[in-house]
Amino acid sequence: MDHAGLAELVKRALAEDVGPGDITSLACVGADVQARAILVTRQAGVLSGMAVAREVFRQVSPAISVHELKSEGEAFEAGERLAEMSGPARDLLTAERVALNFLQRLCGVATLTRRYVETVAGTSARIVDTRKTTPGLRMWEKAAVRAGGGGNHRFGLYDGILIKDNHLRAAGGLTAAVQAARAAGHHLLKIEVEIDSLDQLEEALAAGAEAILLDNMTPEQMREAVQRVAGSALLEASGGLSLERVKEVASTGVDLISVGKLTHSAPAVDLSLEFEA
Amino acid sequence: MDHAGLAELVKRALAEDVGPGDITSLACVGADVQARAILVTRQAGVLSGMAVAREVFRQVSPAISVHELKSEGEAFEAGERLAEMSGPARDLLTAERVALNFLQRLCGVATLTRRYVETVAGTSARIVDTRKTTPGLRMWEKAAVRAGGGGNHRFGLYDGILIKDNHLRAAGGLTAAVQAARAAGHHLLKIEVEIDSLDQLEEALAAGAEAILLDNMTPEQMREAVQRVAGSALLEASGGLSLERVKEVASTGVDLISVGKLTHSAPAVDLSLEFEA
Amino acid sequence: MDHAGLAELVKRALAEDVGPGDITSLACVGADVQARAILVTRQAGVLSGMAVAREVFRQVSPAISVHELKSEGEAFEAGERLAEMSGPARDLLTAERVALNFLQRLCGVATLTRRYVETVAGTSARIVDTRKTTPGLRMWEKAAVRAGGGGNHRFGLYDGILIKDNHLRAAGGLTAAVQAARAAGHHLLKIEVEIDSLDQLEEALAAGAEAILLDNMTPEQMREAVQRVAGSALLEASGGLSLERVKEVASTGVDLISVGKLTHSAPAVDLSLEFEA
Amino acid sequence: MDHAGLAELVKRALAEDVGPGDITSLACVGADVQARAILVTRQAGVLSGMAVAREVFRQVSPAISVHELKSEGEAFEAGERLAEMSGPARDLLTAERVALNFLQRLCGVATLTRRYVETVAGTSARIVDTRKTTPGLRMWEKAAVRAGGGGNHRFGLYDGILIKDNHLRAAGGLTAAVQAARAAGHHLLKIEVEIDSLDQLEEALAAGAEAILLDNMTPEQMREAVQRVAGSALLEASGGLSLERVKEVASTGVDLISVGKLTHSAPAVDLSLEFEA
Amino acid sequence: MDHAGLAELVKRALAEDVGPGDITSLACVGADVQARAILVTRQAGVLSGMAVAREVFRQVSPAISVHELKSEGEAFEAGERLAEMSGPARDLLTAERVALNFLQRLCGVATLTRRYVETVAGTSARIVDTRKTTPGLRMWEKAAVRAGGGGNHRFGLYDGILIKDNHLRAAGGLTAAVQAARAAGHHLLKIEVEIDSLDQLEEALAAGAEAILLDNMTPEQMREAVQRVAGSALLEASGGLSLERVKEVASTGVDLISVGKLTHSAPAVDLSLEFEA
Amino acid sequence: MDHAGLAELVKRALAEDVGPGDITSLACVGADVQARAILVTRQAGVLSGMAVAREVFRQVSPAISVHELKSEGEAFEAGERLAEMSGPARDLLTAERVALNFLQRLCGVATLTRRYVETVAGTSARIVDTRKTTPGLRMWEKAAVRAGGGGNHRFGLYDGILIKDNHLRAAGGLTAAVQAARAAGHHLLKIEVEIDSLDQLEEALAAGAEAILLDNMTPEQMREAVQRVAGSALLEASGGLSLERVKEVASTGVDLISVGKLTHSAPAVDLSLEFEA
Repeated sequence: MDHAGLAELVKRALAEDVGPGDITSLACVGADVQARAILVTRQAGVLSGMAVAREVFRQVSPAISVHELKSEGEAFEAGERLAEMSGPARDLLTAERVALNFLQRLCGVATLTRRYVETVAGTSARIVDTRKTTPGLRMWEKAAVRAGGGGNHRFGLYDGILIKDNHLRAAGGLTAAVQAARAAGHHLLKIEVEIDSLDQLEEALAAGAEAILLDNMTPEQMREAVQRVAGSALLEASGGLSLERVKEVASTGVDLISVGKLTHSAPAVDLSLEFEA
Repeated sequence: MDHAGLAELVKRALAEDVGPGDITSLACVGADVQARAILVTRQAGVLSGMAVAREVFRQVSPAISVHELKSEGEAFEAGERLAEMSGPARDLLTAERVALNFLQRLCGVATLTRRYVETVAGTSARIVDTRKTTPGLRMWEKAAVRAGGGGNHRFGLYDGILIKDNHLRAAGGLTAAVQAARAAGHHLLKIEVEIDSLDQLEEALAAGAEAILLDNMTPEQMREAVQRVAGSALLEASGGLSLERVKEVASTGVDLISVGKLTHSAPAVDLSLEFEA
Repeated sequence: MDHAGLAELVKRALAEDVGPGDITSLACVGADVQARAILVTRQAGVLSGMAVAREVFRQVSPAISVHELKSEGEAFEAGERLAEMSGPARDLLTAERVALNFLQRLCGVATLTRRYVETVAGTSARIVDTRKTTPGLRMWEKAAVRAGGGGNHRFGLYDGILIKDNHLRAAGGLTAAVQAARAAGHHLLKIEVEIDSLDQLEEALAAGAEAILLDNMTPEQMREAVQRVAGSALLEASGGLSLERVKEVASTGVDLISVGKLTHSAPAVDLSLEFEA
Repeated sequence: MDHAGLAELVKRALAEDVGPGDITSLACVGADVQARAILVTRQAGVLSGMAVAREVFRQVSPAISVHELKSEGEAFEAGERLAEMSGPARDLLTAERVALNFLQRLCGVATLTRRYVETVAGTSARIVDTRKTTPGLRMWEKAAVRAGGGGNHRFGLYDGILIKDNHLRAAGGLTAAVQAARAAGHHLLKIEVEIDSLDQLEEALAAGAEAILLDNMTPEQMREAVQRVAGSALLEASGGLSLERVKEVASTGVDLISVGKLTHSAPAVDLSLEFEA
Repeated sequence: MDHAGLAELVKRALAEDVGPGDITSLACVGADVQARAILVTRQAGVLSGMAVAREVFRQVSPAISVHELKSEGEAFEAGERLAEMSGPARDLLTAERVALNFLQRLCGVATLTRRYVETVAGTSARIVDTRKTTPGLRMWEKAAVRAGGGGNHRFGLYDGILIKDNHLRAAGGLTAAVQAARAAGHHLLKIEVEIDSLDQLEEALAAGAEAILLDNMTPEQMREAVQRVAGSALLEASGGLSLERVKEVASTGVDLISVGKLTHSAPAVDLSLEFEA
Repeated sequence: MDHAGLAELVKRALAEDVGPGDITSLACVGADVQARAILVTRQAGVLSGMAVAREVFRQVSPAISVHELKSEGEAFEAGERLAEMSGPARDLLTAERVALNFLQRLCGVATLTRRYVETVAGTSARIVDTRKTTPGLRMWEKAAVRAGGGGNHRFGLYDGILIKDNHLRAAGGLTAAVQAARAAGHHLLKIEVEIDSLDQLEEALAAGAEAILLDNMTPEQMREAVQRVAGSALLEASGGLSLERVKEVASTGVDLISVGKLTHSAPAVDLSLEFEA
């Protein structure tokens, strides 16, 4: 059912790359030449995005069959085979780059997420994503974060209330902002407030904030926030956290650590499609 | 005129993030509150993508005005102001993340390209991109490569003939493939052939290849290819070239060096929108 | 910015009615005949939807100007003038029916909502809508409910978790369902559970339900639920409530009363466009 | 073949309700849980719209099978089963509300139409619909009118010429308007003129009107019009006709009675989907 | 208002020709070079389609201004100037071919129509088009027929009932077919029946056909049909009528002569865009 | 895979002709009447476009089967059967005109191309098309040219660099224009320059033009150009070449002859669909 969005996404990606036609493959490869191609990885990582790749091949040709050797969220080593495709050689060649472009990015997101998740293992903190995603790919990058073991933050501006410092200024203060959000939002939405100083903590709690985002705070400040809040609201740590720093932050007792880098700067995983004789 | 594609791209990106509505801003910020926001960078880099960001603000509200302080392809230092926006605070807040998501990625591509270009300065080699781009963003990532000083390879499968090893196999040999491409393609397209061994060089030239892609060769092999080809065809070096290795490759005399990393793994530049009091 | 959705909605409505052309008006009315038309109501009610009607006129002809005499949510009496339009007579005639089709329905929704809201005035209960809306018009029917003084429930399946009896069955029990929802949903979403017997109340609270929907219960049961829950979760009453019954339900102390009829069976308000000499 | 329009309609309705995902069902119901659901009616009525509902289920999941127990236009009693669906529980839950939203409205239209049709049984008058339909649903509401036993008026502004009083004014008189319509329209279109006084009758006939709409006339006036026209043109009665008044109007001998209420104010039929253990 | 369809049509035509970019003009012509271009015709003819050409220029660049020197339906001689455009040279070059492709075809249709119309001048017959139009261009080709002085037949299968011989066979005879059409069609549609022998004439009239298409009949047969019908139905002559034969057919007294060639085989008019120094 | 574009093209063509419904066939022909129809040609010609016609039938009804009796590019005589269709009579009738509208045009293009190709047989010249195509049909008209034995020129402004006289003027001369194109275009694109005098020949070659378009030159001039260029660039003759003149032009030794008439003025081939008893 998510199918409609996926079909559109892949259609646009193919239109962008193939346009009016793959002139090389049409010229050089007969319509009846069959081939078998192996999706191989040159790096270790975590798989995500085969559903998208599968849709790419399906749209290029229903005569292509895809056999997955690893599943969503499964780890792989350098050199492993991830999937096998067979069908008309011409169509496999046409689909190849678009399929890889999706996969290399989504595996990249899942792989980096897995490293963050393993780093904070044993603490109560959950690694979650942000809205700092690639335009057009959010649903799939968020799925890749889940594949890597992370959790999702809200999906967009429409399914969660997060009052940031800029909102506070324009709203005439924190309490006013929370009250306005309470009055306008439907009853199934919690309200989260971003604070950049512990001075705002009590006001946020008193106003009824159900989650509090601690923006760019030190581990000491986070620890103090955890103590003062004492479970009466969720605490989210945020702010350009590297793999090096994230362990210490997780140990402060915060509930969530949101990491923009998972989706905006995960390096692509080096994958290729190799045709067999 | 490229406007149509841009408008669609931005419309989809906004639909993805804003969906049925930015519930926080609608609740907390009055429709008549005006604001002024500054686009600031926390890192040095090269600017690309302001035209896309401008379209984001335009679609969210025609009442937002954008004043650019840096232009496409211009370098900036950490802490510099890149642009100023003013208009309804609510609309600026709604547009913020989508605008930044485009900009941080496109500046990332331009910035990495600039580093490659500067590394090979003084040689005859040109840094060019590949088709390893983000699905949906190819035109803009290729513009970012130009902003960084690089050149573009073909835009898709439709505007250039590049016969790869997999084509060779399916076509029944290099000469047959080149002939087939010559017969099918229109007369304004050159033919490029990928080879992974110097043994194929003479056959490619004899078949009439007008460009030759040297896949994963050593600098020594490239140098020999340059000598043997002696200007009768363009030579393109390719194959996961890091900034460390690219200088040596450039010095071999090849005409083009294509780098996938420019578009698939450029880290985002850290930008933010800061509201002024 | 919600503009994109509105423009699409109106474009489709005009395509449906006008199709390849309003053959009567094109034939009978010269392109340069100007006219002035008054939107008049034959019944009392509450206004909603002028923004949609305005967009209809705008798309048919930018030469039409619309002057509103009543504003969103304002009550009107039978015979009152709600707006004046002037511009090319031909274009006014073409736009008339589509504009009225939107307005008569949205005013109908606002008008019925107002009656429910006034009926429960003085109690702590809030009248809210449901997802029983006209396909394609949900955003605007929900706006009409707000215009009538009601509140909105979730906008769709994507921005609120409501576990119904059918979910319970398939999930293996109430506690399991709430836990599954907690694990999968992001942290800004509350969880509501539908129960049809007070026996389920304690389990729902213990499982951590933050809102409870009382399905088709008697006022006595609702009153007991209010006492037992004692503010630890929101209580929503639901189930085909007529204007006659809603007052008693509201007096039980429930927080929300959701009424499907607001959007699925509100009679249209009788509006017409009268051309002035 | 009408399929294209139907698929689009349903796709938009699902996008509106499900958006990026049915978070409750995805969380609470496993992908492999199968279920069987019965479409039950709580009121008597006439069936219309199962083709639309079927498309809803098809788009959500091809694994759902729908077995219809009543057919288009068939009457049903309160408590009857109208259809059975089986397939993945999760998908049935996701599709439920959109399917019901279409059905409850279309059955409502068919049911009200049937009452009008039965009321005028035995007269020569035919009950027909108007263009006062729900934006986006016209084709299906007109099908529901046929299911109820009524006839259709023109489908839009493009397939029938109906000159209303506002046209007359802008065209410079009735005769001029009919002549203009005759000259511009193609030869397969009849011309209908709306009159609100019997004084216009002879001019309309003389001008060559092939149908005449009697707007808000008394039964006496209609009877006189029937006599004076004597079969030389079709006569259509119009004007907010309630079930109470329609019988008398039908007995005047008019050919058609158009009723806006059939589509703009038919109350929804109360349907539900019940999951079986 | 027809604007929406026009904008879509032109958008697709530009996408088809310009695709990702007019690489020649972008490379060779600076963004600030202004130019002035004259639309010149190398043949005599009748103008149609400037509204489409204008939209092409508008979409390519709002900075282009178009000044029309001839109006829709106006005749021109070889060598005449039809319009002047000024604006950015680059944009004029990009728009040129698409604008000309529309104009050369639509002027071709108008020009051929004018010749047919002039050939039958003085008779009672009207030259009308058919549904044998270019897919995607029907509305504009029908406008071109009007520009040439012809009339339009129905616009599609949706706004006119024309029962052809194949319908007759499948319907079980002419009378049955007309009755079925009468029962199903709304009351503003006339019914036309195609006959290929005069034997069918009386049955058609008796069944109530309001127009009769005489398929591939001789002038003698047509003359007899005119006499026998004596005004009780419209008569349309059809069947590959060349300019040579059409005069004789027109003189038989038929009401309409439909000519497929007007739209399916009108030669393009030779137009060009000449840039002034 | 080209399928997406084809499906869209056919969908629009059907929407244009069928719109809300084929009222004649729906009324007169029962849903269960089966028929068999033969595609017959009344003229000799060359087949092209059956893939489009097949898609028309497929979209109207998957229950229609199409059996092709001639293949793309195959010649046929007047009276021959080209294909047989069987399925629901109603659906065949609905699809008929749109399918024929595509076929009659595409066969027309293929047929005219074949005549040109046969006329120049024995020379070294290749007949190619231009961008003077029907808006929306370029891909299919270019396929029809290939079916007729011709070759394709570039597909649009995006996949070939052709510097015309208007570019030259705006670019500041031929050498500057070629250099600008070389710098901007990617390395797989050749550069063609249009010249209208032999005086420009040496400059074009010196600037590095890889193809030269000889605009409206005499055969003598072409012959001289062939001699002077001596294989160092491709030569293309262009300029309203009739069948009568093209043989002489071909004998001059030019490589390509581009003919706009192939696509803008090919007369339709007279095809019809005949239903069998």
